[in-house]
Formats: sequence, C-alpha cells, structure tokens
Amino acid sequence: MARGQLSMNLATTRGAWGFAEAVDGCLRHGVTAISPWRDQVAAIGLDEAARIVKANGLRVTGLCRGGMFPGVDAADRQKRIDDNFHAIDEAAALGADCLVLVVGGLPGSSRDIAEARKMVADGIAAIVPHARSAGIPLAIEPLHPMYAADRACVNTIDQALDICETLGESVGVAIDVYHVWWDPNLAAAIARAGRMKRIFAHHICDWLVPTRDLLNDRGMMGDGVIDLKAIRAMIEAAGYHGPQEVEIFSTENWWKRPGDEVVKTCVERFETVC
Amino acid sequence: MARGQLSMNLATTRGAWGFAEAVDGCLRHGVTAISPWRDQVAAIGLDEAARIVKANGLRVTGLCRGGMFPGVDAADRQKRIDDNFHAIDEAAALGADCLVLVVGGLPGSSRDIAEARKMVADGIAAIVPHARSAGIPLAIEPLHPMYAADRACVNTIDQALDICETLGESVGVAIDVYHVWWDPNLAAAIARAGRMKRIFAHHICDWLVPTRDLLNDRGMMGDGVIDLKAIRAMIEAAGYHGPQEVEIFSTENWWKRPGDEVVKTCVERFETVC
Repeated sequence: MARGQLSMNLATTRGAWGFAEAVDGCLRHGVTAISPWRDQVAAIGLDEAARIVKANGLRVTGLCRGGMFPGVDAADRQKRIDDNFHAIDEAAALGADCLVLVVGGLPGSSRDIAEARKMVADGIAAIVPHARSAGIPLAIEPLHPMYAADRACVNTIDQALDICETLGESVGVAIDVYHVWWDPNLAAAIARAGRMKRIFAHHICDWLVPTRDLLNDRGMMGDGVIDLKAIRAMIEAAGYHGPQEVEIFSTENWWKRPGDEVVKTCVERFETVC
Repeated sequence: MARGQLSMNLATTRGAWGFAEAVDGCLRHGVTAISPWRDQVAAIGLDEAARIVKANGLRVTGLCRGGMFPGVDAADRQKRIDDNFHAIDEAAALGADCLVLVVGGLPGSSRDIAEARKMVADGIAAIVPHARSAGIPLAIEPLHPMYAADRACVNTIDQALDICETLGESVGVAIDVYHVWWDPNLAAAIARAGRMKRIFAHHICDWLVPTRDLLNDRGMMGDGVIDLKAIRAMIEAAGYHGPQEVEIFSTENWWKRPGDEVVKTCVERFETVC
C-alpha cells in the first residue's frame, strides 16, 4: 500500500506565514493537507478559515490543540473543559480529522503527578460526549517526558492507550516521533495502538544532537537521529496509512527562514528520508 | 527504620571545589559520605584521594562514572570496555559502594537505538567478571529520555532491570529522581527493583519549571516539582534504606555559589523536603 500523504502542521511555517499565506504556500508546493493551530485560525476568523479549506479542497489532518485539563480547582478545570468544547466545535467547522489533545501538566504549585493524570482522564471523559456528537475524534498526543511538568503528563503511547481503553472508540493517539522515538517499548506500543485501531495521527520532525532548547529546537526530518523510516514501518504495520504531518518548532532556524524554503525542504525530505 | 544519610555527589560542588576542598567542606557541615567523579579523582591522584577517604573515615557511595559502551566499531567498543576496567579499579581503590554506569547513546552517526541498546548490554556483560572479582557492584543509571541520543539509551528503571536480570546479582540500578520522576510506571518499577534487591543508589535533586538547559539546569531539592518524599517512600518500601546522594548540575546557579553555601543548603533541604 502506498504511504500516506504529507500534511503541513502550520506551526512549521509559523515564523513566516499566517493561515492564508500558509495555505497558498502549501498549494504552491503541491501540499493539500494541513493542520492549523487555534490561534492561527482565530487570527483570520473561523468562518474565513473554513471557507479557505473548502474552496481549496484541503484535507485538515487535525486541529491543534485541545487538552490542558489539570487545574488548580474545580472552577479552573471546568473552564478548561469548556475551552475544549469550543475547540471541538472549531475542529468540526474546519472538517478536521481529529482534535489533538496536549493534556497539560502539573496545575499551580502541585507536585502530585498522579493526581494531574487523574484530572486528565476525567477531563477527556467530560468532553467525549460532545466530541462524539460533533463527529470529531480526540487524539491524545503523548508528549516527551521532558514536558511532564508543564505541558503534558501523558508521556508514553501505552499510557495514552490505557486512557483510550476506558473511553471507547472515539479517543485515540497522535503519534509524534519526536516524543516517542526513545521509548524502549515503542514497537509493542504502536502494535497495541494498531490492534485497538486508535492511531489517529502521525507527526514527524527530528531530534537534533545537541538539542539547545527544550521546546523550540526541533529538527527537520533527516537532520537528527530519529529513524523515521523504521517508525513509519511500525505504524504502517499497525494498519495506519494516513498522512504524515510535519510539525517543527524551531525559533532559531526554520522559523527564521522564508516559508517557501521551509515547505520545499519538507517536501524534499518527506520524499527521501521519511 | 531511620532513613539513609545524606551523601554529596561532588558534581554538586564542582563549581567551587576540587576533591580535597569538597571533602573538607562536607566535613564542616557534618556530611561524611561522598560520591566523586573520575576527573576529580584524577586531578588529585587516585592514591591521594583514597588516602583522604580513609583518613577521614568517609563512605564513598559511588564513583561516577563508567559506561559509554556504544562505539562506532569493535575497536572503539573495546577501548570503552577497557576504560570501564580502569573505572572499576578506581572504585575499588576508593572503597566505593558501586560504580555508576551512564551507558552511552547512539554511536557516531547511527540512528539505530536498538543496536545501541544491544551494545550496552554486551558492554556491561563484558565488564561484570572484573567488577565481581574487584567486589564493585555496577549500578546502571537510567537517564531521562531527553538524553537517549547522546548520553544514555537506557531510559527507564524497567529497561535497566531487564538488563540486570540477564547478568546476575552484581548489576543493579542507581535511581535518580531527576531521570525517572515522570515515569507512569515508577511505583511498580521501584517495587520490582526492590524484589530483585537491585537498588544500589538513590540520587536526588529537583526538576525546575522552566528548565532552561537540558544538561546543566537541575534544581536544588524543594525548588522544583518532584515529590521527593513520595519517591523516597517508594524506595524505602522496596527495602532500600541507604544514602540519598545529592547530584546537581547547575552551571548558572549552584555552580556559581560558594561551596559552603551549596552544602549548607543541601543539608537544610535534605532535612526538610527529602
């Protein structure tokens, strides 16, 4: 079976382009799938973003992002759940394949990661009914353990799948190679996700050596140490043949370059090293 | 049962002191256990370091470090194994409780982490006989996944224990809270290590939010988000009541402060938040 198409996560061209410019840029390079961020959609307006998507026949492989469930008290947690309802509605308006969930870390001054993880499971459970009625699958994205404190306390595919098992078929995982490439249990975890039919997205970039910043020093595919073809083979063997979405946070390199250069490089690398 | 004593890993006072000054400084603050690095021992000379240890009745809770097994070819790997033989001899000369192993990452331009992990298991197997005859237990230190590429491709306690199971009783784990606090399977993994009687060391510091550098921005106990008392309880429940060793890499903060301030703070925090 042919591999899935390339999708551009619009974080990758954030340094150069807003939503409309990014769509034009992607189309110039033959890329017809995108995954925008909510702030990029808000900047142009949801209706206009949806119109552009429809007018150009784009596939929206995901909306980034919902999640961030842990809060300092019940009111805070409810506010966060309410925001996820809005995110689901926006994903539906854009016709997105899924809403990506970055689940959140330790709330306030908490050191109780087990409690934060319970808040995450409870938060996702609270939004599942609305996601189902809107027809938007929820893709839990396990984040690298270096983000456990401040971004996401779900840090392995297996941990995400444990949550999925309790919540039914509309909750799955977004597998981003950057976050999971190191996992000694990676092959088994991807196979498990495949058996559960819960692979909803496949994100790519690369891990640079050295990595100079915990958040914004991701590499272009081929510039780092991740065996992208090996992980793609695991994901395809697990039954997923959907898009590979390029998501690169890079304040000091790619975000400083012209958008056309970034997209052109993504396309070239996608065809050679992914 | 009373908890174990405080040990000072001499990386913590690296900014201010060499080996001899660090010993004097520790003794001024009532700290009688240390864990030096090989370069610190080499700088003063192994014989003199051993003499200072003996003259002051110090406990040496570990020598940092052996490991770094993956190499680009067989000759490179053998050179690394030979260096571990020297490290074992140095640990024996110092009367150290164990040799800490930071196992190494991807060799050369490799992207094959499975192969690197095999090189690690093979490398440890190659040094076990010498370690046994020298009476030096080998403590595999699982490092945080953010070091998988360039420092250690053993990244969880369970992964280290899988290696231990194949190699017999003289190979165990050094549990450093900084590297493992995020692990969703932490409690079960520590319990497993206890059942196997393989907890050889317990290192402490803290995870800062934000963390500004992947290597050298570790926090003083109490300044971050790790629930140190909860992890200590897991380790004690698993049967380990030995020293807690403070190991803080901190180029921009603690390494700039006077050694006495660093040790005094470690002692205070050890008594209150650990």
